[in-house]
Amino acid sequence: MKYSLADIENMDQRYRAQFVNSLSGFKSANLVGTINAKRVHNLCVVNSVFHVGASPAMLGMVMRPHTVRRDTFENIIETGCYTLNHIHSNIVGAAHQTSARYDKEASEFCETGLTPYFSDCFTAPYVKESNIKIGMQIEQINPVEANETQIVIGRVVEVIIDKQAVLADGFIDLQALDSVAIASLDGYYAPKLINRYKYAKPENEPTILK
Amino acid sequence: MKYSLADIENMDQRYRAQFVNSLSGFKSANLVGTINAKRVHNLCVVNSVFHVGASPAMLGMVMRPHTVRRDTFENIIETGCYTLNHIHSNIVGAAHQTSARYDKEASEFCETGLTPYFSDCFTAPYVKESNIKIGMQIEQINPVEANETQIVIGRVVEVIIDKQAVLADGFIDLQALDSVAIASLDGYYAPKLINRYKYAKPENEPTILK
Repeated sequence: MKYSLADIENMDQRYRAQFVNSLSGFKSANLVGTINAKRVHNLCVVNSVFHVGASPAMLGMVMRPHTVRRDTFENIIETGCYTLNHIHSNIVGAAHQTSARYDKEASEFCETGLTPYFSDCFTAPYVKESNIKIGMQIEQINPVEANETQIVIGRVVEVIIDKQAVLADGFIDLQALDSVAIASLDGYYAPKLINRYKYAKPENEPTILK
Repeated sequence: MKYSLADIENMDQRYRAQFVNSLSGFKSANLVGTINAKRVHNLCVVNSVFHVGASPAMLGMVMRPHTVRRDTFENIIETGCYTLNHIHSNIVGAAHQTSARYDKEASEFCETGLTPYFSDCFTAPYVKESNIKIGMQIEQINPVEANETQIVIGRVVEVIIDKQAVLADGFIDLQALDSVAIASLDGYYAPKLINRYKYAKPENEPTILK
């Protein structure tokens, strides 16, 4: 079946949201932790975190200033920092619940039962239950002109993780840490390893890394 | 274990690449198909495709102009269009092999055994074997100042997919289509559904969608 541009534009709004949100493929599953000047914590599920570069270490994410994520975006602007916390299978329900439109004064930590955790020299709250906690400092923000989203790029300044999950070559075993993936707006998945592959070279066949 | 900014900066380059590429969480797994003015096809695995918006339907991806992906980026600039093609478990090896540094004149389709497929009114080649094929038109490019990457945002203009995989609410069953996820640089995963959740509201508990 071929869907044309007109077919997509003519979809019912909610149907189109599910359909188009499925197109990128599986997504990362993180909770963004922030704090505002009044020390109110905010926590929000985000499925758009992507790798930007390893040196300096940078990650990007998409924020919609006119949805529930407005608090998160404003807190990042105000404080310059935020945390990313991987979602694992035991906290999927609580993580999804952070997407509800709670009042600005409410902390999604309290509302969902997740626990704020603070590192020595970082103001934004981590999620204690998370198996990978990443401290981020804002680097660059680019508006997307065709809609009202913002692409937020930050530098990694701290990573808290069980060292045993970091393999000898630096690869982090996300399956061992039970990190989940997201499809579309509301599907949570447990990925199972098929294979790792060696660095590809034109003169070699694809080779599985044992 | 806490990794500081200095710990990350002091990692060996390859170790850091694996480590930092793991931090975002699981990634989408796509092949980008392009064509240049001389009609040479190019195909390249990309693990950074992310959702930008549903109306208009837009996806973003990160391109490194100074790596093997230079051909892809130049072709996109030249022609204004590209395709995204989901990777499934049977083409993981061939897909990974497209990351090898083939000559500019070589087609990664020929080199890896994947088959170009053309739609009526779209110049860039799709991957015939792929179960989700997406035609994209360039919308906006933002350079990331701290490194030499480019964030490429495109509009979805065509989607080719088995209609049976599109559920009644528009959610695409990526597991039924065998789409894979990527971790770090070289790990390919098959995601298994845990649960879908209903739209979250402050007054309700998290509710599994049956």
